Amino acid sequence: MSKSNEALPPLYPILYEETVRRALIEDLGRAGDLTTAAIVPPDAVAAASIVARRAGRVAGITVAAAAFHCLEPHLDVSVRVADGSDAEAGDTLLVVRGAARPILSAERTALNFLGHLCGIATATRDIARAIQQYPTRVVCTRKTTPCLRALEKYAVRAGGGANHRFGLDDAVLVKDNHLILAGGVSEAVRRLRGSVGHLVKIEVEVNSLEQLEEALREGIDAVLLDNMPVETLVRAVRMAKGKAWTEASGGISPANAPAIAATGVDLISLGWITHSSPALDVSLDLAISL
Amino acid sequence: MSKSNEALPPLYPILYEETVRRALIEDLGRAGDLTTAAIVPPDAVAAASIVARRAGRVAGITVAAAAFHCLEPHLDVSVRVADGSDAEAGDTLLVVRGAARPILSAERTALNFLGHLCGIATATRDIARAIQQYPTRVVCTRKTTPCLRALEKYAVRAGGGANHRFGLDDAVLVKDNHLILAGGVSEAVRRLRGSVGHLVKIEVEVNSLEQLEEALREGIDAVLLDNMPVETLVRAVRMAKGKAWTEASGGISPANAPAIAATGVDLISLGWITHSSPALDVSLDLAISL
Amino acid sequence: MSKSNEALPPLYPILYEETVRRALIEDLGRAGDLTTAAIVPPDAVAAASIVARRAGRVAGITVAAAAFHCLEPHLDVSVRVADGSDAEAGDTLLVVRGAARPILSAERTALNFLGHLCGIATATRDIARAIQQYPTRVVCTRKTTPCLRALEKYAVRAGGGANHRFGLDDAVLVKDNHLILAGGVSEAVRRLRGSVGHLVKIEVEVNSLEQLEEALREGIDAVLLDNMPVETLVRAVRMAKGKAWTEASGGISPANAPAIAATGVDLISLGWITHSSPALDVSLDLAISL
Amino acid sequence: MSKSNEALPPLYPILYEETVRRALIEDLGRAGDLTTAAIVPPDAVAAASIVARRAGRVAGITVAAAAFHCLEPHLDVSVRVADGSDAEAGDTLLVVRGAARPILSAERTALNFLGHLCGIATATRDIARAIQQYPTRVVCTRKTTPCLRALEKYAVRAGGGANHRFGLDDAVLVKDNHLILAGGVSEAVRRLRGSVGHLVKIEVEVNSLEQLEEALREGIDAVLLDNMPVETLVRAVRMAKGKAWTEASGGISPANAPAIAATGVDLISLGWITHSSPALDVSLDLAISL
Amino acid sequence: MSKSNEALPPLYPILYEETVRRALIEDLGRAGDLTTAAIVPPDAVAAASIVARRAGRVAGITVAAAAFHCLEPHLDVSVRVADGSDAEAGDTLLVVRGAARPILSAERTALNFLGHLCGIATATRDIARAIQQYPTRVVCTRKTTPCLRALEKYAVRAGGGANHRFGLDDAVLVKDNHLILAGGVSEAVRRLRGSVGHLVKIEVEVNSLEQLEEALREGIDAVLLDNMPVETLVRAVRMAKGKAWTEASGGISPANAPAIAATGVDLISLGWITHSSPALDVSLDLAISL
Amino acid sequence: MSKSNEALPPLYPILYEETVRRALIEDLGRAGDLTTAAIVPPDAVAAASIVARRAGRVAGITVAAAAFHCLEPHLDVSVRVADGSDAEAGDTLLVVRGAARPILSAERTALNFLGHLCGIATATRDIARAIQQYPTRVVCTRKTTPCLRALEKYAVRAGGGANHRFGLDDAVLVKDNHLILAGGVSEAVRRLRGSVGHLVKIEVEVNSLEQLEEALREGIDAVLLDNMPVETLVRAVRMAKGKAWTEASGGISPANAPAIAATGVDLISLGWITHSSPALDVSLDLAISL
Repeated sequence: MSKSNEALPPLYPILYEETVRRALIEDLGRAGDLTTAAIVPPDAVAAASIVARRAGRVAGITVAAAAFHCLEPHLDVSVRVADGSDAEAGDTLLVVRGAARPILSAERTALNFLGHLCGIATATRDIARAIQQYPTRVVCTRKTTPCLRALEKYAVRAGGGANHRFGLDDAVLVKDNHLILAGGVSEAVRRLRGSVGHLVKIEVEVNSLEQLEEALREGIDAVLLDNMPVETLVRAVRMAKGKAWTEASGGISPANAPAIAATGVDLISLGWITHSSPALDVSLDLAISL
Repeated sequence: MSKSNEALPPLYPILYEETVRRALIEDLGRAGDLTTAAIVPPDAVAAASIVARRAGRVAGITVAAAAFHCLEPHLDVSVRVADGSDAEAGDTLLVVRGAARPILSAERTALNFLGHLCGIATATRDIARAIQQYPTRVVCTRKTTPCLRALEKYAVRAGGGANHRFGLDDAVLVKDNHLILAGGVSEAVRRLRGSVGHLVKIEVEVNSLEQLEEALREGIDAVLLDNMPVETLVRAVRMAKGKAWTEASGGISPANAPAIAATGVDLISLGWITHSSPALDVSLDLAISL
Repeated sequence: MSKSNEALPPLYPILYEETVRRALIEDLGRAGDLTTAAIVPPDAVAAASIVARRAGRVAGITVAAAAFHCLEPHLDVSVRVADGSDAEAGDTLLVVRGAARPILSAERTALNFLGHLCGIATATRDIARAIQQYPTRVVCTRKTTPCLRALEKYAVRAGGGANHRFGLDDAVLVKDNHLILAGGVSEAVRRLRGSVGHLVKIEVEVNSLEQLEEALREGIDAVLLDNMPVETLVRAVRMAKGKAWTEASGGISPANAPAIAATGVDLISLGWITHSSPALDVSLDLAISL
Repeated sequence: MSKSNEALPPLYPILYEETVRRALIEDLGRAGDLTTAAIVPPDAVAAASIVARRAGRVAGITVAAAAFHCLEPHLDVSVRVADGSDAEAGDTLLVVRGAARPILSAERTALNFLGHLCGIATATRDIARAIQQYPTRVVCTRKTTPCLRALEKYAVRAGGGANHRFGLDDAVLVKDNHLILAGGVSEAVRRLRGSVGHLVKIEVEVNSLEQLEEALREGIDAVLLDNMPVETLVRAVRMAKGKAWTEASGGISPANAPAIAATGVDLISLGWITHSSPALDVSLDLAISL
Repeated sequence: MSKSNEALPPLYPILYEETVRRALIEDLGRAGDLTTAAIVPPDAVAAASIVARRAGRVAGITVAAAAFHCLEPHLDVSVRVADGSDAEAGDTLLVVRGAARPILSAERTALNFLGHLCGIATATRDIARAIQQYPTRVVCTRKTTPCLRALEKYAVRAGGGANHRFGLDDAVLVKDNHLILAGGVSEAVRRLRGSVGHLVKIEVEVNSLEQLEEALREGIDAVLLDNMPVETLVRAVRMAKGKAWTEASGGISPANAPAIAATGVDLISLGWITHSSPALDVSLDLAISL
Repeated sequence: MSKSNEALPPLYPILYEETVRRALIEDLGRAGDLTTAAIVPPDAVAAASIVARRAGRVAGITVAAAAFHCLEPHLDVSVRVADGSDAEAGDTLLVVRGAARPILSAERTALNFLGHLCGIATATRDIARAIQQYPTRVVCTRKTTPCLRALEKYAVRAGGGANHRFGLDDAVLVKDNHLILAGGVSEAVRRLRGSVGHLVKIEVEVNSLEQLEEALREGIDAVLLDNMPVETLVRAVRMAKGKAWTEASGGISPANAPAIAATGVDLISLGWITHSSPALDVSLDLAISL
């Protein structure tokens, strides 16, 4: 894994279109959009733009487009700023043209997806920028919003971060609770060797240099250095160099990230970029004329 | 609607258990929990506590409990702090006992729901407290996380806030884009009178006192006073007194909320309590002995 | 709410297409249409018309069209009579052209939806016509066919009726059983004021003028006057005038509706238009030549 | 198939519980039962009875019970009148005890299923009684309410009727449109012989005695005698005797059913018992004391 | 049912497209196709052919096509060998052109469906060929792969076999366990006559000529002659001639099938063609140039 | 990964119970089990045993148990032979007691799952036994039955095999088609390094020793040696020793597996154990007495 993220991976619609459909139905309820139904004539047409009210990194623009198309396939949707790009306040991100009713009825759903995903991408970008002079990468965790993990992990990529494992089944991460139940790192790893497949990597969370030493002896692929002070991190990174990926975790913010990255750690992982980053302010501006 | 929220409404499991099931499957993937499967013996038992790492308002504790039960119905789950209560840092919110494997495998899903919903409840509580000397109430919006609206609206209630409409179909809210398409407040309301049912309330967003006057003439139920400075709000509230609910909206924070509430406005609405409030830090502590 | 229903609200396909899909699969089973598969060659083309065998009000014509399109997107479907229009016996409502096999296989599903929804619209129209000299409106209830509420409520609109609440969550209706558990109207309304949002209307069912008086004192939005004789209704309407919507309910038929409407009541509500109205007789006539 | 329907077939819950769940969610919406949430305390308990307001044949009582259990598994539900039994006006059909909130919230869903299915059973019973001195049986058609076919066909059984095919895939019924496309009965049956399995019966709709003769020559299993006058029916039955089941169809009502049955026809089929029979009036009476 | 299967029945996409969608998501997981995302540029285009590596009978080619279209509707898919045809080793069955990424990402899903269904068709064809000089037909059973029955039954048809019943609900098959519980063939059939509809055929499994005689006396439609030696089969077929369909079952292989068919039995049924036939070897060959 | 598979991983019911439910509904159709409904009285009770008719390795016994419980939760199901154990012909694998109707109605679904999964486990066991004197392990592929991958991969574990990746998203496998589009191994790996996360392993398929050398230079985790003759394999294994996992693939059978394992290759992968292994013959024997 190099630092430069050359291109965003494709996000096949099959992976999110059911979520978009559910979100639309969640908003329309049983009776549909009462306000629009009453006020807007069936033959009214409009053009509307989704505009960024604040500067930020774009993610989820095709998901927003899908919200319009899912409600009315004939709407003409044009993406103006691609995922992974930076937008300034005032930039138009997407333009939609066609029947006015579905544009208004899908507006909130489209904006809720877009604001949420741009918020994650922007927070990721900001922390990534704070450490850009170091080779250290920003990674996300499994602390994601229920039922939105794939989209949120994609937004992290759009923000310039990398993905940690996507779930409990694509890699092993031995955490403190597992160590309690196994009775130690060596025994835990021994059990893993007899169980997991040859394409499954093993990462172990360690809290001390002693645990780290034990983990490295077992030849594991990565170590999560949990809540270590910078000086300990320095020593840990030196110990693990060439033997395992090093991941610093716990209480990392834009403020302290550079100091942590300066330790030479390979990765810093942050739960808050997915569970606590504020949404980006985006809104839909309507123009009647096409 | 009085200010005192005497009791939280019931949250029937049928309204969230499918969401919990999806979230668990999202985390387990196809292969399940590789780490726990390899390390933890099938007959290992454990007790674990969900503990608040920061002080906050609790919401979603039964949803967290459902995550454990959905994976393994025989787990013994005991709720220690009810939704709507305040917890201190270090408080135990829930205790779960039984087979160690499903406790560990459901941990992250349970915490993701709980942290997210407590975060919303806590943000709501904080803004509600900031204006507690005023009768003004805090309300949420439709700016919610896709597919989690019912749970997030419930968390707002747990935080001491009230709910605005749940979707496009349970009340009318005429927004600026509707007014553009209708050609004005009076015409919009006229169209609504011929369309919506007798149990549907009508709220209109206004940007000026002139618009407000026009809206009040139409006898609508509530007005959303959008981004008005405090001095304008004062006049608007006076004009609407006894005629319509008044809702202030736009850029409201704990800092300026008291000044806005002091205008006598009935409601202040905030999108960020649902789309941008940070998760509450909650974690699961394991003890081997039961 | 004025009486004139100027236009039917839009019925976005997202709100019914999953229901149409389920209905088709319900009819096709696992093996599909055995008869058509054996008898009709794959390259046979046909044109077919859905014809009304009896006069009635049309509702659900786009749902019927969706049944054909869901089975075979290339069918050319042309709607001849729009929802909300009256059809005479013999009128062609819809024409479908293309591959003969899917036309025959979707026929029954399309007709089942259409006959059911036209039946509701026709019954609603007939009762609405019976009272057309009065401003009183016809409204439906929650006594709908399980899983078809949104479509049935739409059919009521197509028949010239208005919609009551769509479910338990879009308005409050305090019924006799609630009053038993609350201990009276005043206490029930007091509890509601502390709980429901500012856009939720409150209607209370009353059985006597004493209860009505108590309800009106509480400033509720509407009263359901349950099974009152005409003379009592007259007094009730007079008492509630200008204070609350009045809804007469219980045992209303086309025969007694005019007398009830003559009392000046705002609304008459009828369960039977959704749960007991006979289907309109519609059928599909086939022509081989296109 | 003899006439005496000795016992109702079992209706495994797996065949309807998803439908019940959807119907409850349809009624609860996103916010749940606002009225009950506000008025009824969480610890209130109650007993309630579902009572028949009119005499009728019971069907769907376990479906109604499932509505209560699906919302709250701890409710104690006791069925008092089994499916297939006759109830008098005033009879208690089911008693439910436990938490008052879920009893009230599930009430309408339970009643909507029960009223609908009892309505079908009652209509079926009435027509079956009208011809009870004849061996002729009453059968239903595929003219059912979308997504409720299995339950409605079950209700027909509870009413003393028999089931025609359940869909397009469990038997062959050659209708007029198929004959147009095949070019005649003989050719249609020839194509069928080369296609359908050995356990699939073949019924052909005929409009004349000539067509009937042609069909009988082909050795098919049953003939649908469409809209034939009684005198023609008599001849048709005589021709088909011992060769094929005879089914009379088209415009059959309780009034003319005896005359049709007197022709000796084996079956009379009626679409209206499923698509147009009025719901049976059932309601829920609450008692606070258990 | 004649032996010549003139044409395959249509397989409406509605009957399998949800299965295809699930299979794709099963393979893509949460993160999608990591390999293709990283290696193949978004604008790369390709042409690819699905080729048969072994000779066999084709079935499921439109299902394979649907796998590509479900992931990317713009792919240009061209079917080269229709279901029901024989392919030689090396034959191109399908060509797909367009964006390279979705072609590669859908490859395995398309091949898994196709290989599985062609395997069943080929096994069916081989056994059917082994007895082609006899009028006896090959039929499948309910021993199918869970959730794939409709597709597998279709593949049997493509292989030249016929379908037995599709489930527990489209015909009666009285098996040994039912006879134990009923107390004998006569009693079992008596109970059936009072229960099943006029379009439901009845087949009874018999283990001896005595049981066969009892079954034939009851006038049932078909007999399953279970595991009978050839000499007993000969006698059984003679006894049943003109009275009921005869089906031989149990331990039938290509080796002994001709001897069994020579007894004159109408049908031989085999579970292994659906549950144990090896997949046909099919693969996807890529060419960069279009 | 050591060879000894100490314990099977847990298979949480949440990962298969929806599949079981779908399979039951697939068999029951709309009308349910016609035969059992007519013949078996509602109060009949029975005990039944699932018995292996051939020797084999057991897998999926809890899935079979779930089929009974899903139809009727009150059935008493007792597992006699655990997954991962060997059964002899005649061994009882599971005993179920209770209402006779659901036992018979769930029989085929339970057996279809069990026979299919035991078949895979048995084939895996046989090939694993053939090479038991070597440290080489048997692994499966993504050539699985659509929608059953998780269960089939579990059956491979029960048979003593190990799992390759579960889908496109849990590891990278660069195949020939990717290499065509990338222009070579080095470029493909370079692109991967800039894209995939730190817990994702990379395996590359090579067809020659030159390609192998190039792949090893890139420091990838594993190499798939495609269709190499034994002598080439010997050299390849020597080259890769200590640098990457080696996996032999293509045309491996029980006959040639020992020779391949003798080359020292780490893994042999086989598609046919999941897509072409015959089902194990299992059946249900009924006893009336409990």
